[in-house]
Amino acid sequence: MVDIIEKNRLPVELDSLDGWLLTEDGSAIRKKFNFKNFSEAFAFMTRVALLAEQHNHHPEWFNVYNRVDITLTTHDAQGITIKDLTLAKLIEGILR
Amino acid sequence: MVDIIEKNRLPVELDSLDGWLLTEDGSAIRKKFNFKNFSEAFAFMTRVALLAEQHNHHPEWFNVYNRVDITLTTHDAQGITIKDLTLAKLIEGILR
Amino acid sequence: MVDIIEKNRLPVELDSLDGWLLTEDGSAIRKKFNFKNFSEAFAFMTRVALLAEQHNHHPEWFNVYNRVDITLTTHDAQGITIKDLTLAKLIEGILR
Amino acid sequence: MVDIIEKNRLPVELDSLDGWLLTEDGSAIRKKFNFKNFSEAFAFMTRVALLAEQHNHHPEWFNVYNRVDITLTTHDAQGITIKDLTLAKLIEGILR
Repeated sequence: MVDIIEKNRLPVELDSLDGWLLTEDGSAIRKKFNFKNFSEAFAFMTRVALLAEQHNHHPEWFNVYNRVDITLTTHDAQGITIKDLTLAKLIEGILR
Repeated sequence: MVDIIEKNRLPVELDSLDGWLLTEDGSAIRKKFNFKNFSEAFAFMTRVALLAEQHNHHPEWFNVYNRVDITLTTHDAQGITIKDLTLAKLIEGILR
Repeated sequence: MVDIIEKNRLPVELDSLDGWLLTEDGSAIRKKFNFKNFSEAFAFMTRVALLAEQHNHHPEWFNVYNRVDITLTTHDAQGITIKDLTLAKLIEGILR
Repeated sequence: MVDIIEKNRLPVELDSLDGWLLTEDGSAIRKKFNFKNFSEAFAFMTRVALLAEQHNHHPEWFNVYNRVDITLTTHDAQGITIKDLTLAKLIEGILR
């Protein structure tokens, strides 16, 4: 069973996840990404898709043209778990 | 300039677009798609991305795991245009 | 260490992999796929890419328009291993 | 009808296509690309796929892990045409 990471004891790691924010109810983390155009945005999404399948943990995401909004939460645990923080870190790794 | 298709004079074509619905404010059409798993959903998204780039008309879309929700509207015209109906038809063509 | 599967003691499994053939030197298995068009071929490739990343085993593949030729071998072992047969089975699963 | 660009009167443009080479028989241009890993290579392929569909001109390409080899030729014309040089330029644009 994966432990939920409670709002008031978020691990240090979130601070190191540049631009990722807690949603209001504290149940998810979220980041908005902007790219030059749709092609660049969709290539990013393809890399996130590869990570998601590899780690068997999938984002809730929205795209329109050059914008990609990603929300990460662990449905089974009804909150944020280490799976979300790990995927967020890997997504950041794509952009570096 | 692309003509807006007004709510009260929607062309016959929309009726033939199985499962596509007008949004409440009549400014867009929308459909929810369900697939077996993420892989099948993302392969569908890749085909829609190819169509979008080809027709230079891009969806607003949301995905989580096996679900894909697509909203089509023409921002320049602040409403539904033939571009949206055309893209919807081509998306239906993928699934047939 | 992954065991090489020698040409003369190929497991039964290959027989059940419809259309996959041993390369002449017995070091790889190969199959040619045909699709309706490029879009369908590339959606298939996207699904194979997701499998490849998930299983950390990647194809040698060639595409032109609606054709995709996939060759599977395990470079570390200089031959066919269970990794190749597993990936071939998963690829077949996409098409069913 | 698209004009073939003969080997001995290749336009200046090819010189400006860094790393693209004529194949031995002069019927195609070709370039080998190297990436950090499969994910980066496949994201590049996805962007090339979007260009190919947009311009209705598709590459012959080979991939294994982080390597992508692209060959461009115009089958209808049995040689290199402006379509190939255009696609090569657009592919270079992705990498800039």
